[in-house]
Amino acid sequence: MGTRFLGEPFSRSFKGALMVWCILLLLIQCSLAATSNKSSHHFYKWEVEYMYWSPDGLENVVMGINGKFPGPTIRARAGDTVHVQLKNKLHTEGVVIHWHGIRQKGTPWADGTASISQCAINPGETFDYRFTVDRAGTYFYHGHYGMQRSAGLYGSLIVDVADGEEEPFQYDGEFYLLLSDWWHKSAHHQEVGLSSRPMRWIGEPQSLLINGRGQFGCSLAAHYSNDNSSLSQCDITGHEQWAPYILRVDPNKTYRIRLSSTTALASLNVGIGNHKMVVVEADGNYLQPFETDDLDIYSGESYSVLLKTSQDPSQNYWISFGVRARKPQTPQALTLLNYKANSASKLPLSPPPVTPRWDDYAHSKAFTNKVKALDHKTIPKPPSTYHRRIILLNTQNKMDGYTRWSINNVSLSLPATPYLGSIRFGLKNGFDQTTPPENFTVPYDVMKPPRNPNTTTGNGVYMLGYYSTVDVILQNANVLAENVSETHPWHLHGHDFWVLGYGEGRFTEADEKKFNMKNPPYRNTAVIFPYGWTALRFVADNPGVWAFHCHIEPHLHMGMGVVLAEGVQRVPKIPNEALSCGLTGKKFMTGNHF
Amino acid sequence: MGTRFLGEPFSRSFKGALMVWCILLLLIQCSLAATSNKSSHHFYKWEVEYMYWSPDGLENVVMGINGKFPGPTIRARAGDTVHVQLKNKLHTEGVVIHWHGIRQKGTPWADGTASISQCAINPGETFDYRFTVDRAGTYFYHGHYGMQRSAGLYGSLIVDVADGEEEPFQYDGEFYLLLSDWWHKSAHHQEVGLSSRPMRWIGEPQSLLINGRGQFGCSLAAHYSNDNSSLSQCDITGHEQWAPYILRVDPNKTYRIRLSSTTALASLNVGIGNHKMVVVEADGNYLQPFETDDLDIYSGESYSVLLKTSQDPSQNYWISFGVRARKPQTPQALTLLNYKANSASKLPLSPPPVTPRWDDYAHSKAFTNKVKALDHKTIPKPPSTYHRRIILLNTQNKMDGYTRWSINNVSLSLPATPYLGSIRFGLKNGFDQTTPPENFTVPYDVMKPPRNPNTTTGNGVYMLGYYSTVDVILQNANVLAENVSETHPWHLHGHDFWVLGYGEGRFTEADEKKFNMKNPPYRNTAVIFPYGWTALRFVADNPGVWAFHCHIEPHLHMGMGVVLAEGVQRVPKIPNEALSCGLTGKKFMTGNHF
Repeated sequence: MGTRFLGEPFSRSFKGALMVWCILLLLIQCSLAATSNKSSHHFYKWEVEYMYWSPDGLENVVMGINGKFPGPTIRARAGDTVHVQLKNKLHTEGVVIHWHGIRQKGTPWADGTASISQCAINPGETFDYRFTVDRAGTYFYHGHYGMQRSAGLYGSLIVDVADGEEEPFQYDGEFYLLLSDWWHKSAHHQEVGLSSRPMRWIGEPQSLLINGRGQFGCSLAAHYSNDNSSLSQCDITGHEQWAPYILRVDPNKTYRIRLSSTTALASLNVGIGNHKMVVVEADGNYLQPFETDDLDIYSGESYSVLLKTSQDPSQNYWISFGVRARKPQTPQALTLLNYKANSASKLPLSPPPVTPRWDDYAHSKAFTNKVKALDHKTIPKPPSTYHRRIILLNTQNKMDGYTRWSINNVSLSLPATPYLGSIRFGLKNGFDQTTPPENFTVPYDVMKPPRNPNTTTGNGVYMLGYYSTVDVILQNANVLAENVSETHPWHLHGHDFWVLGYGEGRFTEADEKKFNMKNPPYRNTAVIFPYGWTALRFVADNPGVWAFHCHIEPHLHMGMGVVLAEGVQRVPKIPNEALSCGLTGKKFMTGNHF
Repeated sequence: MGTRFLGEPFSRSFKGALMVWCILLLLIQCSLAATSNKSSHHFYKWEVEYMYWSPDGLENVVMGINGKFPGPTIRARAGDTVHVQLKNKLHTEGVVIHWHGIRQKGTPWADGTASISQCAINPGETFDYRFTVDRAGTYFYHGHYGMQRSAGLYGSLIVDVADGEEEPFQYDGEFYLLLSDWWHKSAHHQEVGLSSRPMRWIGEPQSLLINGRGQFGCSLAAHYSNDNSSLSQCDITGHEQWAPYILRVDPNKTYRIRLSSTTALASLNVGIGNHKMVVVEADGNYLQPFETDDLDIYSGESYSVLLKTSQDPSQNYWISFGVRARKPQTPQALTLLNYKANSASKLPLSPPPVTPRWDDYAHSKAFTNKVKALDHKTIPKPPSTYHRRIILLNTQNKMDGYTRWSINNVSLSLPATPYLGSIRFGLKNGFDQTTPPENFTVPYDVMKPPRNPNTTTGNGVYMLGYYSTVDVILQNANVLAENVSETHPWHLHGHDFWVLGYGEGRFTEADEKKFNMKNPPYRNTAVIFPYGWTALRFVADNPGVWAFHCHIEPHLHMGMGVVLAEGVQRVPKIPNEALSCGLTGKKFMTGNHF
């Protein structure tokens, strides 16, 4: 049993006392099974506050943690406990942090979703996130209140296999690249625009960031003749906040590159000059390895790829990320694969890999269809049947002059009281008591703009039978404008789901035959392609209340999400601190006079 | 007894039932003294949210109420009850509203000061402000959390004399002008700058607003030859959000102009072309009327002036507000006194009145010394002696690289739990239990920059004896830079004070002889001049916890304030809703398991 404090080894003093304990522990361990893991407790004290930062060379304000942007990286082993004591040092805003991909079994109040799992932490107050990271994988964390993710509240969370366990692939070194997109307009202003009548769209990001670093107004690759932007070569010493995060590698080794996307909007594609990648992990679950020249990654997704440094070691190579699925107006994010013999300022011989056309959806689908689960003890097989199937049609709508996204014509508007408390304590005024629709019942042509674009807001819950198997069909449609259907990556909290299949047009029962029941990828985020559908299956085995939503930040802000709940009466005692607002706060106070 | 709902007369139905009640009430009234007033209940439903607005012609984001900027005007009679049901529709920020000048007798939880009188209202939640407006006068309201006043959260609150009462002066019509200053940088960004290391000052405002209306990048008075700015004449139809609020008057009448300043920074001076003003009210208390050509008004102050429309009615006249006490970089705010025979677009013959030089402090002091209380039944006389005298030296300091303002070397840092709850329930961890210093003990040369500029933050409370008479000497000093001392208007919550005198340099006991004990103005805001002192006296007769601070928003943000408390055990039952955060929230929840 080890304890780490702020990532530093535990106090080196008291060595004598420790020795005694060590001997005692050894004795105890001898009496345990040989496979028993040493689980650790990782304690972090974090303070969230706004600070000046230059994510892309232009100074701006970001939401940082302990003076860092992105926030500190959490690194633990499967089975460890992570304890983040989060202090809100913002002046007037609440804050929460969601641990994306961590299922929070037994700790649903630590999921970090304001209005769902907890009350936002008030300025000056502290909340203790304590949870087990039960499975190795590539994760990240981010704000989940208003648009604080867009404000820069995010960081990486890497879970290694437990001691004594092994990954089903080998590598000599690793890197993690957390991808995001950045606007020069503050998240506050973005929010006002989205909530205004008429809505003002946030537009495309000004820059793409790799580990919080991007370049605006200049290019790392300006000198190639095929760079047809008018950008000049960036003048970078390497010490700037916006200097690229360079991957320094030895030749003839295998590196694991962990990729996570916490973009607010952008779907990205990564390519590495002269190198292929072997994709081995998605969202914390192993994949059947497959080789690829480029990889699509949507907001909310994680991948691990293996890269062999088998190319000419006297050269460096570009790593590029470009926008897909929306017409790009943002330059590629670039950094270097730097073979150590070379200076990091040595430019590659060739220009950066070209991102596939943004609307080459055949390319996207071909990639997605290669993503299949590895046959591995950590990955369950999907149940062959379902208890309940919910079809979620997403539409873009108008409401009273506002623009909204709706699911089965209900646009999510989160309540002031966290659902976890409202459901647990039967506070019927906490949210809409009518169950939201299981389907979009009226005949609806998904290929056309809505005939009646009106919608309403709501915040009902899909109550799921505990341990029931649930199918969700995510059904895409045409937006308000003609001939446009967008890409939406949907993220489920508290669970992984099997992605049984993707299809075109409106889902029909006949499409079931095409489901992949053999090795569907098991993950927490899945994309719906334009005019298409995506079929998911999961087991409602995690007592709690869980958000399920488009991971595009402005889309969620405009209502594109639903709320699921299961087994809430089985949740252990919820810490009062999680429920001190709204009706739960009021209920706590009733009858308690000093 | 009448009831008004959102300013509309109460339901006209149930007339029969009402008749019975009226007769009953008449009978009751007959048995009461002839002077008994008919007090009314004014109910308002307000929603606070950000919205696009063009306060000065440049579109920006403001914090509005019910879609208005400034917020709606409250108008009531002395003795009435005002009930504002405030819903927070911000996405991630708490909110409160302070009713500036209303003493909140018996309702200290309705003072609207976050961390002091209540918890900030969470997004999606509602708080009921219910209080009596016990005295006629010119007041206003504004945000009192973070820098939300700077974000535009303010409006006017006008209290007329009770039915049957009369003002000690007469007038034929009235106007109210709420003055503010405006920055193009958001209050959020301003806050980050002030809290950064090194501090980034907000600079001078881009424009001055009269009832939320100003002009940036053009001038209403560009065509006069002595306008030496390069601004062009504003092109205004009158329907713009930033079109000036014009005062339309009949000739040969007397108008009351109510002036309130809720500026974040600017001290202002008003002049009206060709007209003199007679000053009759300050902060809700009558003054010995005096005539003046121009009037200084500091942030937090209110005045009423009487103006006779005795000039050539075929002309219009400028009303101008210019910056004083800081080197101005902001154009005058302008509007017109428009004699009704003329078009509002007819420009006055002469250019706008010139604002006295910003650093002509002799002029400021001469004006201030004319402000004396009227001998009137509503204004008490000051007690001739005091029980306790607190000397508050304000200094500009450095702390760990941050810039702070301190009072007796303590820079106010508000706690997460409202003092009202912490004190009432004896929660000793709610704030520093050491009483802040009564004086600045070490020899201190107020004419020089601090020898040791270091300071510390704190949040202790000056606990005052209930009904004790307290003197406060506000002592100014040199700031960090040589040869600079600034002007600070200090505002006391929950009380009025007598302004016994102003003086130069460091206050000494001998200065007491110069105190004006005969007719000191009775008000809630008083200025300290550069390198000077201001002596105040008040009676601690209002159970509650009260902020006392520099009304310059960034100065308060940087710590320039103190907290006073008296008779907290006499406060009636505090609504739980006011105390649902921090330690009071936790205490409410303890032992209350479902």
